[in-house]
Amino acid sequence: MALETISEARSHGGTQGVYRHSSTATGTPMTFAVFVPDHTPGTRLPVLWFLSGLTCTHANVMEKGEYRHACAKHGIIFIAPDTSPRGDEVPDEEASDFGKGAGFYVDATQEPWSRHYRMRSYIEDELPGIIAAHFPVNEQRQGITGHSMGGHGALTIALRNPGRFRSVGALAPIASPLRCPWGENALGGYLGLDRQAWRAYDATALIEDGARLPELLVDQGTADSFLAEQLKPHLLDEACRAANIPATIRLHEGYDHSYFFISTIMADHVAWHAQGLR
Amino acid sequence: MALETISEARSHGGTQGVYRHSSTATGTPMTFAVFVPDHTPGTRLPVLWFLSGLTCTHANVMEKGEYRHACAKHGIIFIAPDTSPRGDEVPDEEASDFGKGAGFYVDATQEPWSRHYRMRSYIEDELPGIIAAHFPVNEQRQGITGHSMGGHGALTIALRNPGRFRSVGALAPIASPLRCPWGENALGGYLGLDRQAWRAYDATALIEDGARLPELLVDQGTADSFLAEQLKPHLLDEACRAANIPATIRLHEGYDHSYFFISTIMADHVAWHAQGLR
Repeated sequence: MALETISEARSHGGTQGVYRHSSTATGTPMTFAVFVPDHTPGTRLPVLWFLSGLTCTHANVMEKGEYRHACAKHGIIFIAPDTSPRGDEVPDEEASDFGKGAGFYVDATQEPWSRHYRMRSYIEDELPGIIAAHFPVNEQRQGITGHSMGGHGALTIALRNPGRFRSVGALAPIASPLRCPWGENALGGYLGLDRQAWRAYDATALIEDGARLPELLVDQGTADSFLAEQLKPHLLDEACRAANIPATIRLHEGYDHSYFFISTIMADHVAWHAQGLR
Repeated sequence: MALETISEARSHGGTQGVYRHSSTATGTPMTFAVFVPDHTPGTRLPVLWFLSGLTCTHANVMEKGEYRHACAKHGIIFIAPDTSPRGDEVPDEEASDFGKGAGFYVDATQEPWSRHYRMRSYIEDELPGIIAAHFPVNEQRQGITGHSMGGHGALTIALRNPGRFRSVGALAPIASPLRCPWGENALGGYLGLDRQAWRAYDATALIEDGARLPELLVDQGTADSFLAEQLKPHLLDEACRAANIPATIRLHEGYDHSYFFISTIMADHVAWHAQGLR
């Protein structure tokens, strides 16, 4: 569990770092970003996991997400992992929303993906241990959120691990990979044609199948060009209502799918998590 | 003066746009970014110009600068130009801090640079007309700032145009191109060996030669790796004191030269300009 420090810089009253380690889950080096607010030595801080969307690395939200001011204010450690394994030996499909930058937070079962594309195991099992060993986190106070494909990742990881996260949110998430082209493409490739196997990776299906969250906040722009065909938050809303999960879907008039939206809503979104993590 | 809209997106209660036009000053297409906060139709808003540093385009501060929240709060239009002409026909020196991404806000007099590298004329004369024609700006209420090479640009433009800017600031600026390797390299290349000709492009020399500012705010990180060799804010401080220009140089302990620092200080820096623009 040796951790290599790629960079560290002071920012917004804390330290923004980028780190790399050799992942046993993916069989590759993996890079992630962590922001640690200044704090009294010896104290352990709550954590907010942020899973990123298609094409992203750890760097997109680190550079464009505008989370540091809010995390410093609320005393929250912010963790931004990568979205897939990377490297010359990792298979890819450049022409598709699939492969590098598009791990979809699944453990692939199909060749040639199953060797390295194990982002579920990486985010769910391996990385939390690395984080706990190297950063002053309070593992009893964890929240999770994510953007687009990462919103899907945050929701499904929280649903499969009841009790682990005190706050669960998502920004413009893919509500149901089973029912959108991005999801059909990726899950078909990584998991094969048996759609029953996909249900563990579909937030709406997990809720339909009995998984529960204490509460949920979704922020969504109304001018998001992926809203109708790919994201479909109404499916999540309906599943939550049928399951009596208190879900708030905040619609933001005129905002799109980009970090121009994410950065706008980030402070409010972090503040909501901070309440749950108190 | 046709303006092409490259993109527009809602962000932080305003519109972040990217635009392109054919520049007569540089003889190339030029791209710039403008953030316009929501406002009552028919009103004209104060403007803050932000000149970027070496290697940057309009996009660096747009993506990493975290200025939109503060500009929306204070009702300020934020303008981020490019740092040089670009295109296949524009000469460049890739191995050097010189050429594309490093226009230094000068009108070059030396071949082969003098044809396109006319960033002084572009920022000082041409772009303000484009902005006034297409955006709801109040030309009586303009402020200017910039980062590193762009701090040098902001200071020299303000010093050469007394009365144009009500607020003048800089973030980790190059205080005196005459007295640092970046400046010697660039001004020597663009302007030739007669160092007397460089003085119109050196904030410290301009002040020594009689140019004045009403007031000045500089924000500077103490862990900036360029501080001692390239930036030298003490030269600016000394020149301002000798000239009775009220200059505040705020040092920020442990912060470096990157946008991790710029984004941290941006809200305070914009608030200071907002006071001057009121």
